[in-house]
Amino acid sequence: MTGEPLTERSARVVAARKLTRRAGRDAAGLFLAEGRQAVAEALADPAGVREVFATEAAAAAHRDLLTGAPVPVRPVTDRAAAALSETVTPQGLVAVCALRDVPADVLVDAPPSLSVALAELADPGNAGTVLRTADACGAGAVVFGAGSADPYGGKAVRSSAGSLFHVDVVRGAPLPELLPRLRAAGVTVLAADGGGEAALDELGPELTGPVLWLFGNEARGVPADLAALADARVRIPMRGRAESLNLAAAAAICLYTTQLAQR
Amino acid sequence: MTGEPLTERSARVVAARKLTRRAGRDAAGLFLAEGRQAVAEALADPAGVREVFATEAAAAAHRDLLTGAPVPVRPVTDRAAAALSETVTPQGLVAVCALRDVPADVLVDAPPSLSVALAELADPGNAGTVLRTADACGAGAVVFGAGSADPYGGKAVRSSAGSLFHVDVVRGAPLPELLPRLRAAGVTVLAADGGGEAALDELGPELTGPVLWLFGNEARGVPADLAALADARVRIPMRGRAESLNLAAAAAICLYTTQLAQR
Repeated sequence: MTGEPLTERSARVVAARKLTRRAGRDAAGLFLAEGRQAVAEALADPAGVREVFATEAAAAAHRDLLTGAPVPVRPVTDRAAAALSETVTPQGLVAVCALRDVPADVLVDAPPSLSVALAELADPGNAGTVLRTADACGAGAVVFGAGSADPYGGKAVRSSAGSLFHVDVVRGAPLPELLPRLRAAGVTVLAADGGGEAALDELGPELTGPVLWLFGNEARGVPADLAALADARVRIPMRGRAESLNLAAAAAICLYTTQLAQR
Repeated sequence: MTGEPLTERSARVVAARKLTRRAGRDAAGLFLAEGRQAVAEALADPAGVREVFATEAAAAAHRDLLTGAPVPVRPVTDRAAAALSETVTPQGLVAVCALRDVPADVLVDAPPSLSVALAELADPGNAGTVLRTADACGAGAVVFGAGSADPYGGKAVRSSAGSLFHVDVVRGAPLPELLPRLRAAGVTVLAADGGGEAALDELGPELTGPVLWLFGNEARGVPADLAALADARVRIPMRGRAESLNLAAAAAICLYTTQLAQR
């Protein structure tokens, strides 16, 4: 890493800054991964990363990671790093990565034992958290249905804590078409639904084959037309007074329970 | 609700605005609960609520809730409502409530079958989410150790989705003293710890008596000195590549598993 640091007005930084918006990401086919953990995951797959921006302080702090990096490491000013960050405390280290989408057909052709689909999930933090939980529970893919938060946004990437680089991502899939195709391919589709007719702790054989869990919007849940396409609508038994669980908490319980049943 | 709406410069609104900061809440012994769900929970316990501020629009939208309210409902301008809100889209409806703390001795004298302690939990959203999950799983109390996020902050109250009003809250307890007292009172103290010697799915009799789960900081986990005071340090078995689970997800899995074991 040599030369004058790039400022926030340099062409490279201006181009990268467009990746902080979804339209910019989709136009370029690229996204930003910020911070040591995400950059380390990105560099582990050289074909998927284009360049790394690092402030002087970050380059010094992460020399072990950046020395011998398979892509250019470009020095940037603190202000340039802040322009590429969506946090209030920029980490000074950002990789430009290729979007990692796979086609929905991959899921149909070779269904993973566990996968997740998100319908109208609104919060980017939840998108990243569900990715992280899905990864921890051994899921092979997460489908972000049309209208869901973008897993490549800054907050989602950060919340995923590197798991975005471990799990197949399918975006913009038309779930009304995909769910029946998955069921025809032998996948049990389970919709998380607080009013569902099946109780999670009473599921048995449903969990042993390939399973796809469908989670919905934080406030409205899974849209009724999609829930109707599932093999079952599943509630989490609760003994307390809370009306419902937070979406990421509900997903954690469903995915962990499935992981245990599939061992 | 009659009279000219209070502006953000009125003495009542200025006083209430101080409750958006922790020091102000602790000095007054009060906190703010915003939005229909929280205000409805607050009004269900008239002894715990002092007054409600409502914009003209909110008063019309929530007339069913506010008619016959046991405390004064005061009209406020949109700007005053915004001054009392910690969200970008103020709901125009805010209740001033008494802090709901109970002394730690309550836990020792009559341990609930399930309770939670948080050590150095940093994120207010996680504080509220853990309260909500604890409530859903039938926990009787949540202890916020010294240095943890304040459950009475705007974001925590919102994330708790009303559960702050269902569960006993203990704040500022010195956990190094409290945990041994709870164990002496018959409570099994379990520390959630990714490197723990016990696996969650292999616990049996540990979960059937009164259990307190101890969760730590989002990045650093449970402090080692506190983990050493637990009956066991418990890991969640994971088959994927994620290094760890998000704290709220881990708490959901631990609390749900305990709830099932205690039925």
